[in-house]
Amino acid sequence: MGSSAEPRLRPTPLHEGLHRRLHAVRQRTEALIAALEPEDLCLQGMADASPPKWHLGHTTWFFEAFLLEPHLTGWRVEDRRWGYLFNSYYDAVGERHPRPDRGLLTRPPIAAVLAWRRRVDAGLATLLHDLPHRPQAEADALAALVELGLQHEQQHQELLLMDLLDGFSRNPLEPAADPGPQGAEAQWTRLIGHVPATRGWTSHPGGLVSIGHDLDDPGFHFDNEAPRHRVWLEPFELADALVSNAAYAAFIADGGYSRPELWMSEGWALVQARRWQAPRYWRGEAEFTLAGLRPRPAEAPVRHLSWFEADAYARWAGARLPSEAEWELAATSSAGLAMAFGLLWQWTASPYRPYPGFEPTPGAVGEYNGKFMTSQFVLRGSSFLTPADHCRSTYRNFFPPASRWMAAGLRLARG
Amino acid sequence: MGSSAEPRLRPTPLHEGLHRRLHAVRQRTEALIAALEPEDLCLQGMADASPPKWHLGHTTWFFEAFLLEPHLTGWRVEDRRWGYLFNSYYDAVGERHPRPDRGLLTRPPIAAVLAWRRRVDAGLATLLHDLPHRPQAEADALAALVELGLQHEQQHQELLLMDLLDGFSRNPLEPAADPGPQGAEAQWTRLIGHVPATRGWTSHPGGLVSIGHDLDDPGFHFDNEAPRHRVWLEPFELADALVSNAAYAAFIADGGYSRPELWMSEGWALVQARRWQAPRYWRGEAEFTLAGLRPRPAEAPVRHLSWFEADAYARWAGARLPSEAEWELAATSSAGLAMAFGLLWQWTASPYRPYPGFEPTPGAVGEYNGKFMTSQFVLRGSSFLTPADHCRSTYRNFFPPASRWMAAGLRLARG
Amino acid sequence: MGSSAEPRLRPTPLHEGLHRRLHAVRQRTEALIAALEPEDLCLQGMADASPPKWHLGHTTWFFEAFLLEPHLTGWRVEDRRWGYLFNSYYDAVGERHPRPDRGLLTRPPIAAVLAWRRRVDAGLATLLHDLPHRPQAEADALAALVELGLQHEQQHQELLLMDLLDGFSRNPLEPAADPGPQGAEAQWTRLIGHVPATRGWTSHPGGLVSIGHDLDDPGFHFDNEAPRHRVWLEPFELADALVSNAAYAAFIADGGYSRPELWMSEGWALVQARRWQAPRYWRGEAEFTLAGLRPRPAEAPVRHLSWFEADAYARWAGARLPSEAEWELAATSSAGLAMAFGLLWQWTASPYRPYPGFEPTPGAVGEYNGKFMTSQFVLRGSSFLTPADHCRSTYRNFFPPASRWMAAGLRLARG
Amino acid sequence: MGSSAEPRLRPTPLHEGLHRRLHAVRQRTEALIAALEPEDLCLQGMADASPPKWHLGHTTWFFEAFLLEPHLTGWRVEDRRWGYLFNSYYDAVGERHPRPDRGLLTRPPIAAVLAWRRRVDAGLATLLHDLPHRPQAEADALAALVELGLQHEQQHQELLLMDLLDGFSRNPLEPAADPGPQGAEAQWTRLIGHVPATRGWTSHPGGLVSIGHDLDDPGFHFDNEAPRHRVWLEPFELADALVSNAAYAAFIADGGYSRPELWMSEGWALVQARRWQAPRYWRGEAEFTLAGLRPRPAEAPVRHLSWFEADAYARWAGARLPSEAEWELAATSSAGLAMAFGLLWQWTASPYRPYPGFEPTPGAVGEYNGKFMTSQFVLRGSSFLTPADHCRSTYRNFFPPASRWMAAGLRLARG
Repeated sequence: MGSSAEPRLRPTPLHEGLHRRLHAVRQRTEALIAALEPEDLCLQGMADASPPKWHLGHTTWFFEAFLLEPHLTGWRVEDRRWGYLFNSYYDAVGERHPRPDRGLLTRPPIAAVLAWRRRVDAGLATLLHDLPHRPQAEADALAALVELGLQHEQQHQELLLMDLLDGFSRNPLEPAADPGPQGAEAQWTRLIGHVPATRGWTSHPGGLVSIGHDLDDPGFHFDNEAPRHRVWLEPFELADALVSNAAYAAFIADGGYSRPELWMSEGWALVQARRWQAPRYWRGEAEFTLAGLRPRPAEAPVRHLSWFEADAYARWAGARLPSEAEWELAATSSAGLAMAFGLLWQWTASPYRPYPGFEPTPGAVGEYNGKFMTSQFVLRGSSFLTPADHCRSTYRNFFPPASRWMAAGLRLARG
Repeated sequence: MGSSAEPRLRPTPLHEGLHRRLHAVRQRTEALIAALEPEDLCLQGMADASPPKWHLGHTTWFFEAFLLEPHLTGWRVEDRRWGYLFNSYYDAVGERHPRPDRGLLTRPPIAAVLAWRRRVDAGLATLLHDLPHRPQAEADALAALVELGLQHEQQHQELLLMDLLDGFSRNPLEPAADPGPQGAEAQWTRLIGHVPATRGWTSHPGGLVSIGHDLDDPGFHFDNEAPRHRVWLEPFELADALVSNAAYAAFIADGGYSRPELWMSEGWALVQARRWQAPRYWRGEAEFTLAGLRPRPAEAPVRHLSWFEADAYARWAGARLPSEAEWELAATSSAGLAMAFGLLWQWTASPYRPYPGFEPTPGAVGEYNGKFMTSQFVLRGSSFLTPADHCRSTYRNFFPPASRWMAAGLRLARG
Repeated sequence: MGSSAEPRLRPTPLHEGLHRRLHAVRQRTEALIAALEPEDLCLQGMADASPPKWHLGHTTWFFEAFLLEPHLTGWRVEDRRWGYLFNSYYDAVGERHPRPDRGLLTRPPIAAVLAWRRRVDAGLATLLHDLPHRPQAEADALAALVELGLQHEQQHQELLLMDLLDGFSRNPLEPAADPGPQGAEAQWTRLIGHVPATRGWTSHPGGLVSIGHDLDDPGFHFDNEAPRHRVWLEPFELADALVSNAAYAAFIADGGYSRPELWMSEGWALVQARRWQAPRYWRGEAEFTLAGLRPRPAEAPVRHLSWFEADAYARWAGARLPSEAEWELAATSSAGLAMAFGLLWQWTASPYRPYPGFEPTPGAVGEYNGKFMTSQFVLRGSSFLTPADHCRSTYRNFFPPASRWMAAGLRLARG
Repeated sequence: MGSSAEPRLRPTPLHEGLHRRLHAVRQRTEALIAALEPEDLCLQGMADASPPKWHLGHTTWFFEAFLLEPHLTGWRVEDRRWGYLFNSYYDAVGERHPRPDRGLLTRPPIAAVLAWRRRVDAGLATLLHDLPHRPQAEADALAALVELGLQHEQQHQELLLMDLLDGFSRNPLEPAADPGPQGAEAQWTRLIGHVPATRGWTSHPGGLVSIGHDLDDPGFHFDNEAPRHRVWLEPFELADALVSNAAYAAFIADGGYSRPELWMSEGWALVQARRWQAPRYWRGEAEFTLAGLRPRPAEAPVRHLSWFEADAYARWAGARLPSEAEWELAATSSAGLAMAFGLLWQWTASPYRPYPGFEPTPGAVGEYNGKFMTSQFVLRGSSFLTPADHCRSTYRNFFPPASRWMAAGLRLARG
């Protein structure tokens, strides 16, 4: 590695950590498909979802398009058409395959996609190994881009599981996707065994508070979490627990799905058009899950409901959904917020909009978050499908209010 | 209000004023159709719009359903089916005719609708005359309901003109709806002749400010304008003028409609699907208006654009849209806000959501505003189509971000 | 026509008759709208239908575009855009207004359309008066074109009534369009009072028969009725009467709309998608008609059903629909065919296809029949909505098998 | 028949042949998927098509549902839900999985489907072996049902290939499905190398002829091919060859896709809506095939066009499509008909309707052909995708006139 520039020539701890993390994240993605049948790899249940193989290809394309091709000397893209196939929504990068048709991409076969992953992983290893030889600023920028790619891949790990659940839910055979005790549904079952019995409310004084990611904090964040900014909050209370299946069943029993006065007009139209009568995966007394059809414990948090259902439930309960500022304030308060992470994403009352002073990441990767800031609501926390090290109290997840296939639940607020 | 009932038996000034106002508002609605051809009365250009005759019927139904039937002894509804035909969206009142089919209601004929208006007007006169004989609280509540009906009818006066413009814009003959010098388009032409030359910015210090209608203020307000509440604002600047046709043309010339990086993802999809290339009514160098095809003055404010176009323009201009709190603060500041009212509604960056502590009006009339608080953006100010006495600095108008048929323009903000 | 020009200078009986007929037909069209409200003139209940005013304009455009403009010296088209508005489907003549949007054409107003009719009528009178001065072949060709225009207008008289019935059927007020005793529905009521009691079958030996219009016959025919040609028919029987409401009700009572084995697959899909449970205008024990809601006599022929319903009924009844050759043979046999004309069009089992040797009329008017010869079935006879002098045993009417808004019934065949 | 059971106890030649044929047909189906990637097994390019695995399951279900379950004592259906999944359109058998969602059936996995095939094959072997022990009439009926199942499976062999070609055509990678020299495309290439140079016409005198399957003929036929019946034909000529790529290219070069006068109205609407400019799989100078992108020989028959294109071409060429009676007469004439079988199905001018006296097969298998007799046209002959022993001169194939994914070409007629 040469005699000069030593300090930079030795891999920094950051870069070593990144290498290990790269390996771990990339491996985990492939572990997710280990128990699937080959046909499952192209399963796309609806236009909003993507097949497992597509997720494997897309996350790989992200590294190739944003890291290897522009920054690794000598890197050669083997087949330009794959860029067309595996681009998700980056307009600046070029045309792309229509999203609803991803399930038709039976080729390239999985073996070719996995081989591509190998090749790209090797390219990334070379790039990481080479980082100490680059000017510090460039090395840092590349390391940040690798980290972004990993965070991106972790997001797709959750999407892959959500999409699989959606796809399998459309099969009358009610198949199980879950690889046993290591699977997400087994994890869920373990977690809800420990849901605290507490069902109270915690008060917060509000005032002029700050939320969002502080740009001086070197930890990873997505661009939409910044800048940290001031918000005025009146005093409020948050429920200590997520709403349970039992509580939601009481809402249904009380005519929740047949009383228009509980619903936003747009939501009521959906209730009627789609004949919603319960959360997405409820089936009688059971629930369809990644482990197939399972009993639905009364005390477990209700999951897979739309913002409209969460909002209607809150109205019925004489409460409301928290704003994202309230949620973040509570999560970072000294008392903390119970059930904040690892169970279910929690719908907030906040439309997904830019923070004051928001700046998207420059360049094509900047098409990541900023351009989706209409007609969606923010969810906070993380879910049992989220990789354990992929959560932050400033994290802003977002989905349209009609979406139900992600692992979303709700927590009440009042005041 | 005193120890005997007598003083209450004399019409209060409030009620006398209400009677005069009732007459004026109801007359103006009918004046709007005076210059139309009979066939125009059923013109419905799209599902979002309604025919003129329907507006006349619906505003009348509102008074009958919420005032006369429940509160005027002896009132008889002549044909229950009319309630079905002219209910807009009040779920609590019962089923209703499908909105996209309003143009099919060639019957009841206009003469019957006008006769109904006469009959309802007479009923309202009786009710108003009778108010002093009722307990004060009840009288006040009924007076408030009449006022709500008038405000509602004024909103429909603007809708009627918007809808007519939309309908006529679909006719290759490019007809003119406007009754000459008294018409809205003539008014527009007069107004833009006096648009100030100033094109600067006004600074505001922000801080912890209050916006919204103060419930102690007895003036009329819609429920969504309350309660008054505190908001933290960082310092900001607002443009003194609305964006002009010339400025918007520069955006187009610079590829505004072909550069995805300027657009929200949802807006870009619309640009492509609907082949948007200019504001809704631009036609070459001219503009389609209620007075037919007209020249498009360079310095006049650009009108009839969607939120997506307003947002993309602002991004292109290196600025942003104001929040509704910023807009209201500026409009109520000592300096005031130029071009705030009477020209064009002004898109804000704020999704239409309830203020903290918002309570919808109880009962069926409460379905007025609260249930539409998703997937829409707030517009502030008022337009050349708005009745002159129908504007307030706390007024919250709202439309979906893709809508273009209302008289909307934009004002830039920065900071 | 003889050695001197004089005889030709005097109007021939043919031309005089044509002039009288022109007047009569044009007048009758306008009589059809005499009892309507002005708003009704733009009523378009569905994309397949057209508003009354459009029918008045279109039939006038036909004369202007095919007769006056090409053949009357000095004729001036006042507004070229009207050609765009009132062209129905003649690709050779140019672009046209989208059919589903005809209801949006509130302008030109009816007065302008009627004035245009006056002007075109005068032009046609001039042209007819001038015919004897033209070479015989040209005069004959023009006279034939005028006759075609009149036949075309008579078709639109029936369409106007069908479309009006459809449009009014969508109005919850169930309006009546019919001008009393002269109206079509009154005529229907008179006719069904004389339906013969006979319910038998008439046998026909079949064999090698000829059907279609003989080109040597100088009487009017549409191009699709020719040429006369030979067809082999096995012996068959035709029912003497059309199927009655009572008989059709028995089919319904026997589960007719819930037994897939009775239906063509395409029809069964429609039954389910559109929730068909009875003919189009049945409402409980009554029937919606041009005279409003009316009782439905058991012995009257069932009307307003699709080919799929007619076919399913026939299968249920152990019979079948007649082929058009069978129908025509019976109608022209010495015994004749009872209830052949003036009640209801009668679905046949024959797809609408060209006769062997079919030649469309040359030029733009040739787009009349030939290009619709797919995915439709032939109906024979004529209906109570058809002008009395607009029927022939060779007449081939045609509609898609899912259509129900025309006055169609059915007659059974077997053998 | 006969006095002792013994002769019946020995397998008749018929049954032995059937056993061998059963084995061969079932094997061939599985051979068709041998070269596919596992993901391809669920590929469904459009709602009209089905995935390969579904074809394997459906043909197996047919034997189980119509043969084994009702007729083999002790047969047990392992999973009733598979009947729901693999029923195609038999209403009498019960509900079924929605056709457009067949591609979502990643489970049961292919191994399970193949195991089912084994089990059903064994059941059929038992049933066949047992036939001689059954009364003759029953044995004959069962043998006929097995034969029907085999014919049905052969139809699905062709569908499987058509559907695969459609699915792969939607993949930008343009994959090849074809297993080399044994594949259908290789077969096509060999065949077109021997297309005769003759380009003449053969005359036929017509007259009173008979077509259709004679019910006294013991050979297999589908119900829609019977009964044999008389038809009158005028003299006609048929082209000796199918229309070539070169000839069709001349039609395109002459504006074939931009001249409405050449098209049926319904077809012209499709040309515009779907932007058709060439046959389905033409790509520049090449053609997409089961062997991937391939050159398009000028003299090879043009393939994969809709009835509308065939009809428009014929009109352009001053000819017409043959009726199915003309085609069958020519194919069975002493001279025979060149290129009748094994290249391409040939569109006829005949709507698909029942022959006079047609009777569907009784019971659920009778839902095979009869219920599709609307809105389709007949094709005659067979194609390079059709199993070689699956063709007859009375065979009536049928598709909607807009369909292009089957191996269809055209032959001209005149007179």
